[in-house]
Amino acid sequence: MEPQIDVVGIGNAIVDVISTVTAGFIDDHGLVKGAMTLIDADRATSLYELMPPGIESSGGSAANTVVGLVSLGGRAAYVGKVRDDQLGAVFVHDLRAAGVAFDVVPGTDGPPTARCLIQVTPDAERTMNTFLGKSVDLAPDDVDEEVVASAAVTYCEGYLWDAEVAKAAMRRAMDIAHAGGRKVSLTLSDSFCVDRHRDEWLDLLTDRVDLVFANEAEICSLFRTDDFAAASRWIRDMVEVSALTRSASGSVVVAGDDTWMVPAAEVDRVVDATGAGDLYAAGFLYGISHGADPEQCARLGGLAAAEVISHIGARPRQSLSSLIH
Amino acid sequence: MEPQIDVVGIGNAIVDVISTVTAGFIDDHGLVKGAMTLIDADRATSLYELMPPGIESSGGSAANTVVGLVSLGGRAAYVGKVRDDQLGAVFVHDLRAAGVAFDVVPGTDGPPTARCLIQVTPDAERTMNTFLGKSVDLAPDDVDEEVVASAAVTYCEGYLWDAEVAKAAMRRAMDIAHAGGRKVSLTLSDSFCVDRHRDEWLDLLTDRVDLVFANEAEICSLFRTDDFAAASRWIRDMVEVSALTRSASGSVVVAGDDTWMVPAAEVDRVVDATGAGDLYAAGFLYGISHGADPEQCARLGGLAAAEVISHIGARPRQSLSSLIH
Repeated sequence: MEPQIDVVGIGNAIVDVISTVTAGFIDDHGLVKGAMTLIDADRATSLYELMPPGIESSGGSAANTVVGLVSLGGRAAYVGKVRDDQLGAVFVHDLRAAGVAFDVVPGTDGPPTARCLIQVTPDAERTMNTFLGKSVDLAPDDVDEEVVASAAVTYCEGYLWDAEVAKAAMRRAMDIAHAGGRKVSLTLSDSFCVDRHRDEWLDLLTDRVDLVFANEAEICSLFRTDDFAAASRWIRDMVEVSALTRSASGSVVVAGDDTWMVPAAEVDRVVDATGAGDLYAAGFLYGISHGADPEQCARLGGLAAAEVISHIGARPRQSLSSLIH
Repeated sequence: MEPQIDVVGIGNAIVDVISTVTAGFIDDHGLVKGAMTLIDADRATSLYELMPPGIESSGGSAANTVVGLVSLGGRAAYVGKVRDDQLGAVFVHDLRAAGVAFDVVPGTDGPPTARCLIQVTPDAERTMNTFLGKSVDLAPDDVDEEVVASAAVTYCEGYLWDAEVAKAAMRRAMDIAHAGGRKVSLTLSDSFCVDRHRDEWLDLLTDRVDLVFANEAEICSLFRTDDFAAASRWIRDMVEVSALTRSASGSVVVAGDDTWMVPAAEVDRVVDATGAGDLYAAGFLYGISHGADPEQCARLGGLAAAEVISHIGARPRQSLSSLIH
């Protein structure tokens, strides 16, 4: 059967709290610049108290990706877990209002909706501190078989691997996708996240993933190397298609014996790097589902990423489809 | 005794939910463009469902003003009421993190924290729809006598006049201020708001207000006239100092026999008019409390307003003090 939608994204359902800070703020409070650090409820409270005034904007890596995909003209669904609280309502609203199908029932007990405290420094780098809250209670039962089977690609967020029950949900989604002859994609999410799950992911990539997204730090971390060329050789043998991003240097796609190197799209001024990788994946997946070749896919990824880093927040501010047509 | 702070602001404690919409959205959903319309909880839910994805940013007219004042280098406190919910926590955080003293205890029952659903159209005009929620439960007991007595100016938001108990709180604050030899300032807030309270406000302005802020539509509505010159003559006789704003045409200050006409500050591109009046008041009040003459006060108001309309959201994104020094 033909897929009804292009991509179903599975990830941590998170609301971002974004503040602009000085470079000194990162050092003064022992934050890990440029990384995603997991924090507990107490740390979330104490760190928030230290932060300057902020804005709240729906986030979550895979959620950003499916919103970007719909903005490009694609069809998408999302699987993730919020609480029935105010931030949960914001997350649900923003996803549905963007045109993403999202029907997972919000939890009625347990921790509040996840939030990510993001500090944007003057160099436009973002430092993320995530309180996972309710998002890690995503259970296998929350994965709707019909939704996953209807999607050409099931796109999974590496971040979700930090919780056992959510991991089980993701494995179930991968099984459903492959049973239906669909493709499975994984983003490695963060180099520290790779470090936490290296062995499992090496098996997972070999056995269950058809398309992997990773930036330079992540793919190097996966193979415990500083040599990007070596890492891209190794991943080539494990996964059908690998899209490897290198920030301002663009991206490299390796598939079978082929390699494409694609420059980054031009940006007038980089304001906030939050969501760059998520939107690259959005563009790439849009290309995949519309029959583009890998080079075109990488260019679409670069265009979508360029839009999102030109302003604060990880969701597109303008119709991405108008940028590519 | 010398005042310990420059301004205490009293107003509706509100979190803004801001979406960019097409011009057609305003017409299609029967919204009153450029105005502030009060909505109930059901309408807030149904209108939110219709809105595109948004961002959340702390707002509230007087709260925006005191944040602007602190950003300019002044000292400020705030009096307003939130619930002990997630949006209330956001509001409290953003105010305190901005350096505003804010000690009113959040309510533990009743409606949720107020929110304002704001649609920004391509012409940068904002249309506001406010669900007042907990903010109207501000009671006379929430007004700390010591805080009000310590402020050179007590700045009241006309919007707050829509609720009886909040009105009583504001009258109490005015009494405390005048008993301590301090000044009282009122912003007329919105022409429809003026229409609802015209008779009361004509008395209030005559008897209890030393400094009034109004835009052209508001001051004309107050005197039921289309003639701005006539309205400015009438207000001159009622209030010691009147700062009357005229959008891109700048502002007019009338005080006793004197009149100052001050052009607006230049803006590269107006993105979102939300907060323009609030930040004008911030600049003007900063001037007042730092011994500036009315023309300088109006210029400071224009500079602060210019910053806030150059981006989305009603709070300054950069230190306003760096703009004026």
